[in-house]
Amino acid sequence: MIIITQPNATEEQIERIVARVREFGLDPQISRGASRVIISVIGPEDLAREKPFAALPGVEGIIPRLKPYRLASTEFCPEPSSVAIGEVKVGGHEKVALISGPCSVESQDQILSIARTVKKSGASILRGGAFKPRTSPYSFQGLREIGLRFLAEARKQTGLPVITEIMDARDLSVIEKYADCLQIGTRNMHNFSLLKEVGRSRLPVLLKRGFSATINDLIMSAEYILSEGNMNVLLCERGIRTFENSTRYTLDLNAVPILKSKTHLPVVVDPTHGIGLREFIPQMSLAAVAAGADALMIEVHDSPDLAKSDGQQAIVPDTFAELVPRLRAIAAAIGRSL
Amino acid sequence: MIIITQPNATEEQIERIVARVREFGLDPQISRGASRVIISVIGPEDLAREKPFAALPGVEGIIPRLKPYRLASTEFCPEPSSVAIGEVKVGGHEKVALISGPCSVESQDQILSIARTVKKSGASILRGGAFKPRTSPYSFQGLREIGLRFLAEARKQTGLPVITEIMDARDLSVIEKYADCLQIGTRNMHNFSLLKEVGRSRLPVLLKRGFSATINDLIMSAEYILSEGNMNVLLCERGIRTFENSTRYTLDLNAVPILKSKTHLPVVVDPTHGIGLREFIPQMSLAAVAAGADALMIEVHDSPDLAKSDGQQAIVPDTFAELVPRLRAIAAAIGRSL
Amino acid sequence: MIIITQPNATEEQIERIVARVREFGLDPQISRGASRVIISVIGPEDLAREKPFAALPGVEGIIPRLKPYRLASTEFCPEPSSVAIGEVKVGGHEKVALISGPCSVESQDQILSIARTVKKSGASILRGGAFKPRTSPYSFQGLREIGLRFLAEARKQTGLPVITEIMDARDLSVIEKYADCLQIGTRNMHNFSLLKEVGRSRLPVLLKRGFSATINDLIMSAEYILSEGNMNVLLCERGIRTFENSTRYTLDLNAVPILKSKTHLPVVVDPTHGIGLREFIPQMSLAAVAAGADALMIEVHDSPDLAKSDGQQAIVPDTFAELVPRLRAIAAAIGRSL
Amino acid sequence: MIIITQPNATEEQIERIVARVREFGLDPQISRGASRVIISVIGPEDLAREKPFAALPGVEGIIPRLKPYRLASTEFCPEPSSVAIGEVKVGGHEKVALISGPCSVESQDQILSIARTVKKSGASILRGGAFKPRTSPYSFQGLREIGLRFLAEARKQTGLPVITEIMDARDLSVIEKYADCLQIGTRNMHNFSLLKEVGRSRLPVLLKRGFSATINDLIMSAEYILSEGNMNVLLCERGIRTFENSTRYTLDLNAVPILKSKTHLPVVVDPTHGIGLREFIPQMSLAAVAAGADALMIEVHDSPDLAKSDGQQAIVPDTFAELVPRLRAIAAAIGRSL
Repeated sequence: MIIITQPNATEEQIERIVARVREFGLDPQISRGASRVIISVIGPEDLAREKPFAALPGVEGIIPRLKPYRLASTEFCPEPSSVAIGEVKVGGHEKVALISGPCSVESQDQILSIARTVKKSGASILRGGAFKPRTSPYSFQGLREIGLRFLAEARKQTGLPVITEIMDARDLSVIEKYADCLQIGTRNMHNFSLLKEVGRSRLPVLLKRGFSATINDLIMSAEYILSEGNMNVLLCERGIRTFENSTRYTLDLNAVPILKSKTHLPVVVDPTHGIGLREFIPQMSLAAVAAGADALMIEVHDSPDLAKSDGQQAIVPDTFAELVPRLRAIAAAIGRSL
Repeated sequence: MIIITQPNATEEQIERIVARVREFGLDPQISRGASRVIISVIGPEDLAREKPFAALPGVEGIIPRLKPYRLASTEFCPEPSSVAIGEVKVGGHEKVALISGPCSVESQDQILSIARTVKKSGASILRGGAFKPRTSPYSFQGLREIGLRFLAEARKQTGLPVITEIMDARDLSVIEKYADCLQIGTRNMHNFSLLKEVGRSRLPVLLKRGFSATINDLIMSAEYILSEGNMNVLLCERGIRTFENSTRYTLDLNAVPILKSKTHLPVVVDPTHGIGLREFIPQMSLAAVAAGADALMIEVHDSPDLAKSDGQQAIVPDTFAELVPRLRAIAAAIGRSL
Repeated sequence: MIIITQPNATEEQIERIVARVREFGLDPQISRGASRVIISVIGPEDLAREKPFAALPGVEGIIPRLKPYRLASTEFCPEPSSVAIGEVKVGGHEKVALISGPCSVESQDQILSIARTVKKSGASILRGGAFKPRTSPYSFQGLREIGLRFLAEARKQTGLPVITEIMDARDLSVIEKYADCLQIGTRNMHNFSLLKEVGRSRLPVLLKRGFSATINDLIMSAEYILSEGNMNVLLCERGIRTFENSTRYTLDLNAVPILKSKTHLPVVVDPTHGIGLREFIPQMSLAAVAAGADALMIEVHDSPDLAKSDGQQAIVPDTFAELVPRLRAIAAAIGRSL
Repeated sequence: MIIITQPNATEEQIERIVARVREFGLDPQISRGASRVIISVIGPEDLAREKPFAALPGVEGIIPRLKPYRLASTEFCPEPSSVAIGEVKVGGHEKVALISGPCSVESQDQILSIARTVKKSGASILRGGAFKPRTSPYSFQGLREIGLRFLAEARKQTGLPVITEIMDARDLSVIEKYADCLQIGTRNMHNFSLLKEVGRSRLPVLLKRGFSATINDLIMSAEYILSEGNMNVLLCERGIRTFENSTRYTLDLNAVPILKSKTHLPVVVDPTHGIGLREFIPQMSLAAVAAGADALMIEVHDSPDLAKSDGQQAIVPDTFAELVPRLRAIAAAIGRSL
């Protein structure tokens, strides 16, 4: 943090600023110019916040430390890191991974059938919700452990590793028994208790961006997980809330290159929730790969109009099968593969 | 839910729509017009969602059930309800309550001193955080149970009932030992596991609006708590995220009359986080009371520039003391008292 | 503008930064600290923009000139200024003005009848649109000069000065013949050609905030008018676009104290368009006065469901008549009058 | 528009609704069901607005006419239309066009040099601003007619047709003398007077989305131009305002497939203003083509840090030259060419 004083700041004010910096156990370094003084604050800056300093008399402005995160940053790890979900690596320079499956696990038949069909089309990871975050307390809340067992069975039969959402720290041990990757949903991105808990898990974590979280907020939430020792975090863009109302959310593909420049973590894009309209999933998937996404997460349901959740945005297996070769062509055009 | 068919919908399409409604165990009622058919769906509509129906061939549009919530609605309870925090009633037609205190409990001296001073100025409820949700994992995370004990001591010495935030369901039993009201913070408004848990508590719950939650989202989260049997819920507007960047958030006072028309629950306004700039807290507090708020929650700190969190937005005790008579005048002007 | 260099900036980089400042005809002042150099840029800073400097090698950060506007600022004029519309003064410390009338002028009878009724209830200025900005090219576009004549007749009969919207610089001379104040609508706040034109008018200008303009954008647009010599500008908050969908816009009352701290110009609030729902106009009007607004602009229509535009948000004359004494009470509570 | 009555609507209420529909000169068609009545409104619906009807007693809900626009719709013209700028066709199924040039025309040398270099790299249309919309009245406002002459000279020397912004209807005749395509900027998308004026021009119009305009708003503004007889309109996505602050705007690529499904007009994407950060223009350009854009508009400047406007977001000619073959590969991957 760098503190710049006003041209007319008094010596007394400057001394008070310096003293305040020292109260936080930090080491101020003072440069005197013709009319202003600049106070650089060195040390573990997380101890201090900029805003209380900005409020001190004599301060004209503050330049914050540019990056409040460490472990997620490209300074900490300059090369893109890859995260293994089961035996599938996500991230790094080359491969783009394809995560697919239904919104909710509804029955053993359903998940087995969808798992087989998406695997055949080219998916390498299976997704499916057993614990469902629902806006209404009266909506379907998921099959819970039974759903997890169906997912595990689908993995056994198809070889696809499994990713599923965790909503409550108390469910961690049961989910760890069955899943290959934990998902933190958009509504829990700021649930710091849950973030710390999955930070102690042995499983990788796919962290979805809160639908009104800034890109920096997302990285800070990843930092919570990383700071507990779990370095296997994937960041997932899934649409933000804007004034636009012809789409369900606004899929923010700008986040892809920005995240990849700020962090070393793999970046996943979820066009299904992002645009939220079945017929436009293919175009947004193609665009996501072109923008540099390391993986896509696409919901597929064999009878979307019977789905217990999110049917209107899932694509059918045939659409998915037709989409994969087009994704492959885009990946090839930017020097990657699917 | 009312389904309207397209003018050229075939009989087969209409039959399929009707069959789908029945599959959900619902009872469709059919009205045939000259060119369109209208299908009213009666029964526990929560079983079905509008969007899958909107996707069926032959459907032109859907009018959703206007209110997806029940227990929070003015239909369920036409009169404004009041909620008791300790012995202080919040809500109903007359009194406006004043909740005040520091952002975080930092020491016994700090909380006692602030509690005494805000009580003297006119506050009737004490707030203070012992478990702190912080964007950075490296920031101060709260004094936890020690902080709760300090709050309880402050209540003993001043008589002010105590409200404090819960972030993790596993902390419920310890917080219940000390607090008079639970607070769900803005970042947990969509943490459905936590909502269900506090729905089983004997304590009232002050539910803060997520900073990007719509008003309906807020009411749906309240419904989660109510549906578990805890009818003592207060709704709190605390600022939403918009493109405006000269304030920290945009305090949305429109939410006050809207919430009061849609629900019977008391409405609290938190101008401190809402505008996030100390010097403008008084004007927004006055406006909140004029808009019809049942309570204000205002952060006060005796030395804001030393505060461990949110110092830049807390007001000092003297400002608070000067504000209270002005709030009283506004309350009187709209026929209420403070 | 203050430029701070990186700790490892080379002498060559610093010289290039300094040279670039001089190329803009500006005078850099250099302060050397132990590890960083701070370059203060003095002079007419509008000649230079921060962002190109931020892109230069060796630059760590920039503190922009805090206020890119001059004539609108409280530095230029520390006391709140008042603007005369006809003989009615708006702004300054005491009086709160009441501007009322229909959205569109629809007929001579309509405008005369509404003018008389709002005057009787306490309005001091009449509003009415003759040139209408409509989202659809197929909607009613206003009565144009005929409407202006009806407004002038209403002024003659009631004594109320008249405010009306200008959408096209080519209409200025005809509007100047009839009106007492020009209104720039929300959709033209960034129409810089029109701003310059009204900056040369002898009439005061009520400038509405663009529905997605920041507070600073609004002040910059006012600066366009002021810089052409017209110092009679009123700023009007009228709702911003957010994700919230239970109101038409989000009336941003935070803008009231913020605008009043940054500028000396009178601040008007338009709750009608802001919340856009008739039944909540009274509460938002009361809140606006409590927040410190210098005037309210409230649409009144005697038969809103017959109105050619915006009927759903206009209040009826009886509601207006009942509201005025309540506004008066709020004004009195904060030491002002209506 | 379809009006649905409440189950308990009285005959009197229904008659009043029907009478009101007829007052607008529209023809209501009534279908009576067991408990509700549905009133379909046929005719030139633009005469009536939904909201006044929604306010009538006995009305439960309204289904608006889905598309308030006609000439822009795919119903009016089911095949994608193409627009000729000079001799370059934009739109249709195959070719993707590349529009490039500096933000502002600064000198004859500058525009000639950039025109030659972007042509060599693969651009087929030249952009450059002669009339500049600037937030600050003290910023560079453009070279005006001199700038237009420089653009015309650049066309003469390179053969590239020229697109330039119009800000004021009074400049139309001079711009028509020199340009091949008019641009309406983001800040004038709602300037209905200007839209009508360019609707009478013989030149095509590139209409930029307002940075807080919904997709429907954009189409309605296009409809203004089309309804005056100018059918040569191109729609341009250029970033919207959201809460995200690590990019200048949020480039909304969702708009590409949505616009292409709702209208037949060509869709252009401007990544330069959209993300506003030079280093990420390439990724967003690739993503835009993958999403289905018919053209890209990319700002190029040979010395961005000397640019009089928007230097921080322009890319240098070398970056542009490297980008074009990558765009070509993406275009090929989706079956198009560049």
